[in-house]
Amino acid sequence: MKVVEVLHMNGGNGDISYANNSLVQKKVILMTKPIRDQAISDLYCNLFPETLCIADLGCSSGANTFLVVSELVKVVEKERKKHDLQSPEFYFHFNDLPGNDFNAIFRSLGEFEQNLKKQIGEEIGACFFSGVAGSFYTRLFPSKSLHFVHSSYSLMWLSQVPNLIEKNKGNIYMASTSPPSVIKAYYKQYEKDFSIFLKYRSEELMKGGKMVLTFLGRESEDPFSKECCYIWELLSMALNELVLEGLIEEEKVDSFNIPQYTPSQGEVKYIVDKEGSFTINILETTRVHWNNASNNIENINNDGYNVSKCIRAVAEPLLVSQFDPNLIDLVFRKYEEIVSKCMAKENTEFINVTVSLTKKK
Amino acid sequence: MKVVEVLHMNGGNGDISYANNSLVQKKVILMTKPIRDQAISDLYCNLFPETLCIADLGCSSGANTFLVVSELVKVVEKERKKHDLQSPEFYFHFNDLPGNDFNAIFRSLGEFEQNLKKQIGEEIGACFFSGVAGSFYTRLFPSKSLHFVHSSYSLMWLSQVPNLIEKNKGNIYMASTSPPSVIKAYYKQYEKDFSIFLKYRSEELMKGGKMVLTFLGRESEDPFSKECCYIWELLSMALNELVLEGLIEEEKVDSFNIPQYTPSQGEVKYIVDKEGSFTINILETTRVHWNNASNNIENINNDGYNVSKCIRAVAEPLLVSQFDPNLIDLVFRKYEEIVSKCMAKENTEFINVTVSLTKKK
Repeated sequence: MKVVEVLHMNGGNGDISYANNSLVQKKVILMTKPIRDQAISDLYCNLFPETLCIADLGCSSGANTFLVVSELVKVVEKERKKHDLQSPEFYFHFNDLPGNDFNAIFRSLGEFEQNLKKQIGEEIGACFFSGVAGSFYTRLFPSKSLHFVHSSYSLMWLSQVPNLIEKNKGNIYMASTSPPSVIKAYYKQYEKDFSIFLKYRSEELMKGGKMVLTFLGRESEDPFSKECCYIWELLSMALNELVLEGLIEEEKVDSFNIPQYTPSQGEVKYIVDKEGSFTINILETTRVHWNNASNNIENINNDGYNVSKCIRAVAEPLLVSQFDPNLIDLVFRKYEEIVSKCMAKENTEFINVTVSLTKKK
Repeated sequence: MKVVEVLHMNGGNGDISYANNSLVQKKVILMTKPIRDQAISDLYCNLFPETLCIADLGCSSGANTFLVVSELVKVVEKERKKHDLQSPEFYFHFNDLPGNDFNAIFRSLGEFEQNLKKQIGEEIGACFFSGVAGSFYTRLFPSKSLHFVHSSYSLMWLSQVPNLIEKNKGNIYMASTSPPSVIKAYYKQYEKDFSIFLKYRSEELMKGGKMVLTFLGRESEDPFSKECCYIWELLSMALNELVLEGLIEEEKVDSFNIPQYTPSQGEVKYIVDKEGSFTINILETTRVHWNNASNNIENINNDGYNVSKCIRAVAEPLLVSQFDPNLIDLVFRKYEEIVSKCMAKENTEFINVTVSLTKKK
């Protein structure tokens, strides 16, 4: 599986789209607002740039894509008024992998801009938007062309499935039953990927540039901790049920591994320090309950259904690359049952790591 | 009809796509190569920028989108070697209206980049690409952010259908039977649009920045000259046949007007001088025979078929906004017959105006 070709959120705005099943991600963007606001405000007041260049990496498509933009513009507008300055030009870059639905972003931009002007006023500086397709584990922007990089719920995705020397039998992710070599391979891939990410972004950011990155992570420093593997462990269970029913070959599950790693604060700090381009301003962990996948009254008591749809919107293209697309409905019906049972019994939460960084020189 | 919402070339890469029916446009890009090469070479050798920022306005999707990019890179590579310099970073912006198929561009980028490196060598500077959705009759880029603007076969499209005070009865474009007020309204809209285009680009270009623009135009200074109206006059004939057959209401044809204007050299010079931001380096007219719509042997004797498909790829979204989509196949079958007859009798050519400009200060 080539992650760069396969991985993308479900496009469009239909029932199984990411746009309509990304409330957890929205909740996390809102939770991390204070850290983002502080960073952009500090940045703006240090540099007062005429054009403020901002990139959102792993932007996907839908309302979340625009949410960060309007929040950032509001903060800058407040600051520039305080300093009695003209509004700067804003230059927003939306990045995601080439399979992302950029057409959907572009077709919503007109309405978004109108709403932004209504909310903020006509005196807001000109806003320019661009789409940039490519992996953030490669260079995406010219040297020293960015002031601010934001990324939410994307950086846990690895550039590739780790090279495993042992089979990860019966699992599709790191699990308590995975051999230690699997865990090690996952961490090694993460260390390599996150280091490259930091290096490339430090080349693209101007002096004094900042990043605020949020991703799925762990509270525990123990990589076997089930915290974040859990959502995938339950998906393994759904797939394994279909193996038992003879609908999926065992080998297909054994050879499928989700290219994701959920690091601890300690791991993040270690890699940032080792890579050396950035200073850490803030590093924190937050929790968001799985039931944040629901917001409408109709489905409020149907959390399993909504979590299942949330994960489907994220993982369907990966699954389709390995399993019969006709089985996907069934996989997620099984998954919904499993998730529902689990949510009734346990306190199911996603753990998020947020790190706010400044480029050293 | 809101042109910005309706106008776009047929997307994808199917039988009726622009990508597969744009040989005339390719031919024109190749014909204008010497002018473009000279402009980019002069620009590069004047400024030797570390990052060379280039925008292609009205890029559409398909092979033509990338053709200009690789041609420009080759010229710069030749020059920088002559001057014994490192290759600059290249920053290409692909612009078109929001209805354009940007996803198709982004999904072809990986292969394009690989081919470019194969052709030019691994020592080529890093290439960055962005998509920018919006009308080039608005601001698209931050101030002073571009070195070079290119546009081929796009600037004849107006920002809106001209406001007509008289009906353009039986026609869908300026025609010999159109009232003089229609011709005047078309020219006024063009003058307004092209002036705004020049103003906005002059704000976006850096000092010494250049533009090479090619568009459908006229050789004659007489706006009634049939030269370029012809392709649309024949489409009027096809639509009017369907009116006679009772399949299209007469009123629908009378109230439909193609938002396009094909200026003469004199008109272009007048508007550039009046607007005042640019110096004209080159202004010339070329011709391209309609039979350039064909290249494969199978259809070489079927020029009418290919011209019809070429125009369909360009005009279908406009037509669908006014006429029953189920009639479009029939319209273009009629059109093909009419075009074939016409090509058998007459020397049918498109006239292109190319202008190479430098920003004054």
